[in-house]
Amino acid sequence: MLENKVINIGLAGFGTVGHGLADVIEESRDVIRRRTGSDIRIKSVLIRSDRRRAEVEAIGATPVTDYRALIDDPDIDIVVELTGGIEFPRTLITEALQAGKHAVTANKALLAEDGMRLFALAAEKGVHLGFEASVAGGIPVVRPLRESLAGNSIRKILGILNGTANYILTEMTDKGLDFETALSDAQAKGYAEADPTLDIEGIDTAHKLTLLIRLAFGCNYPFAKLPVTGITVVTPMDIRFAQEFGYRIKLLAQARLVDGKVEAGVYPALVPEDNLLASVNGPFNAIRLEGIAGPVVLHGRGAGDRPTGSAVLADIMAIARHAAPNNLGFVNPVLPEADILDLDDAVSLHYLRFIVPDRAGVLRDIAGVMADRNISIQQVTQKPAVDGGGVPLVFLSHEAKAGDIHSAMREIENMGLTLARTMHFRIL
Amino acid sequence: MLENKVINIGLAGFGTVGHGLADVIEESRDVIRRRTGSDIRIKSVLIRSDRRRAEVEAIGATPVTDYRALIDDPDIDIVVELTGGIEFPRTLITEALQAGKHAVTANKALLAEDGMRLFALAAEKGVHLGFEASVAGGIPVVRPLRESLAGNSIRKILGILNGTANYILTEMTDKGLDFETALSDAQAKGYAEADPTLDIEGIDTAHKLTLLIRLAFGCNYPFAKLPVTGITVVTPMDIRFAQEFGYRIKLLAQARLVDGKVEAGVYPALVPEDNLLASVNGPFNAIRLEGIAGPVVLHGRGAGDRPTGSAVLADIMAIARHAAPNNLGFVNPVLPEADILDLDDAVSLHYLRFIVPDRAGVLRDIAGVMADRNISIQQVTQKPAVDGGGVPLVFLSHEAKAGDIHSAMREIENMGLTLARTMHFRIL
Repeated sequence: MLENKVINIGLAGFGTVGHGLADVIEESRDVIRRRTGSDIRIKSVLIRSDRRRAEVEAIGATPVTDYRALIDDPDIDIVVELTGGIEFPRTLITEALQAGKHAVTANKALLAEDGMRLFALAAEKGVHLGFEASVAGGIPVVRPLRESLAGNSIRKILGILNGTANYILTEMTDKGLDFETALSDAQAKGYAEADPTLDIEGIDTAHKLTLLIRLAFGCNYPFAKLPVTGITVVTPMDIRFAQEFGYRIKLLAQARLVDGKVEAGVYPALVPEDNLLASVNGPFNAIRLEGIAGPVVLHGRGAGDRPTGSAVLADIMAIARHAAPNNLGFVNPVLPEADILDLDDAVSLHYLRFIVPDRAGVLRDIAGVMADRNISIQQVTQKPAVDGGGVPLVFLSHEAKAGDIHSAMREIENMGLTLARTMHFRIL
Repeated sequence: MLENKVINIGLAGFGTVGHGLADVIEESRDVIRRRTGSDIRIKSVLIRSDRRRAEVEAIGATPVTDYRALIDDPDIDIVVELTGGIEFPRTLITEALQAGKHAVTANKALLAEDGMRLFALAAEKGVHLGFEASVAGGIPVVRPLRESLAGNSIRKILGILNGTANYILTEMTDKGLDFETALSDAQAKGYAEADPTLDIEGIDTAHKLTLLIRLAFGCNYPFAKLPVTGITVVTPMDIRFAQEFGYRIKLLAQARLVDGKVEAGVYPALVPEDNLLASVNGPFNAIRLEGIAGPVVLHGRGAGDRPTGSAVLADIMAIARHAAPNNLGFVNPVLPEADILDLDDAVSLHYLRFIVPDRAGVLRDIAGVMADRNISIQQVTQKPAVDGGGVPLVFLSHEAKAGDIHSAMREIENMGLTLARTMHFRIL
């Protein structure tokens, strides 16, 4: 091999992932050359304060304070966006694409909420808009969905996509902690941010699921319409009951094609212990994809400097290799709107936990409400009274429609049969 | 989208996988069109007897009896080789590449034993030589290694790559069967072939490992030099002892970079129960890849009509999408020879099971031989006498060099301290 071409990166965002990217580029220098025939160099880094200037200079890059310096520099081939937020990244990526530059981002929020416009723009300009790092950092899933698994027409997606939520649920399960304590612990250990809303409310998971649905099914499920329940509703009591029945509670991203309609959502669910997803613990992520050729499970680190940095690098290397842009995996970048299955029609197994007064007739009345809707029960257990009075009554249903379950729950609460909020989880 | 281009396939081999390919092409017609802008059509199928003629015509293809009909047909874009064996596939693929056609194969034996010449020829002609189907059928691993994981400089590979061997070990573990009984059961159920040699002797696993080493490390470890031990040596007794210590015995493909040298081999090993690989059961495969950005585990079906057929289809779709050939994942298709670590220098934990006479001094003598070589012991257990006399004595070592372990085993046997063959497995 003779002289290597140099691919110049303009980087916005020099936090954890930005540093991870700089590290993996440095450590993989030889591999990058052998795999792409090019050298990859971080030429300029956008900084918002002088605080980062020395760090940028330490990696041999030029600090710039106006993002237009990245767009206007004709030597910069790729703009890498690792800043977070939505407004500024939208501007930066839009202008980079308009200038005919490739863009690589880890920004699932932007792509989920306003990605389709950006993908159309990238297609119009014939450039890459890489986002391998935006779903499950170190796990190769974006490219496999549009390429390696393209022959396996994926029809079902199940994912544990948020390491913070999974870490908290794992700690609650293994140590019997309540949610608040587990969250504080996770914050103290750096596994949860000071404002953990996006993670614990399932929003981050929903952003990622929106991207996976596009890649796997080739349709656009508007993020705002995705049903999302976070983990703040999960109690140690329900975790314990689930364990007694042979399940672990996980925050799942789920999507499947049902007669051409898309059923999707994010919610805590009971996962059977012998399912590989039940073994995904702590800060790890996993994705189960099922198509016409059987299931595949991908497992690894979902976040962190190097896992995410290495995913960004994979996108950069594809560009350096002159791979043709194939951003969404479909020829036409305008994906049709998803035909969304009515939420009430979604069929699954259900876990229902009531807190009821300890008196005769309650079990009969609740069972009656379920029977009226043809909700068939596979197991029922009455537990000893909890602190503050009331007896937990747990039902595991056979397959039933979500609409019937919700209407049964409403009726049971309206009949005054319960002493506390009823908990409802799907069972995988 | 206007008129679709048609990509014509010339198929050699219409057995299980060939039919699987025809099925997935048929079922994915719409998806293929949306993802590639093309229709994929099996135009001609090579048959060796008239027996298959009707089957070929049933999928709308033309049966041909001379492979040159696939090479000489100017309409055929891609030759797909699914015949098995080595000599004929070598001829077919060589002539197809020479004619400037793309080739796709599931033939790990050919690629492991004589692939480098074919990859050089494909590079010279600027065509694809696709082999996603040749390692772990339904699991996307070939393309991820050269693309999605290219940023994660992989340094360690661990794989369960043979479904037959894994099924037999799983049955031996779960039902306490001996090897012969488990093999007969597997043959009766269609999980093992009449001649299971390639599977149970680890040869098929070694073929796949040879390909993974090339893709991950970018060097060529000559297949003939790869150390290979099959599962015929595994006994129910050792499986039971391993379980007591918290391990399961699996047939592993293993490779890692140690100071730039490659240490690799195929052998049954003890896998800790809490390792994801220990949960890979029956006909499933899994691959654990560890690089500078943490571990990734890929799990799925390793063989079968649709998993393998869908992997072949993924390669065909990449060609239909006009992706640039990137067969080995490196710019220079001439990979350097691997610098092979001396086998004696490989360091790991070890399981040693002796059958010794039930008399004083034996434990002291064996422990003495180990101590002389600085082999440090983490656990030792003496078990009740087995049928036919003799007492099993099981040692679990701390990290030790393979050379020291082998020399200790030889000396212990030469001292007449054992009544039966000593079993030695590595511990993961």
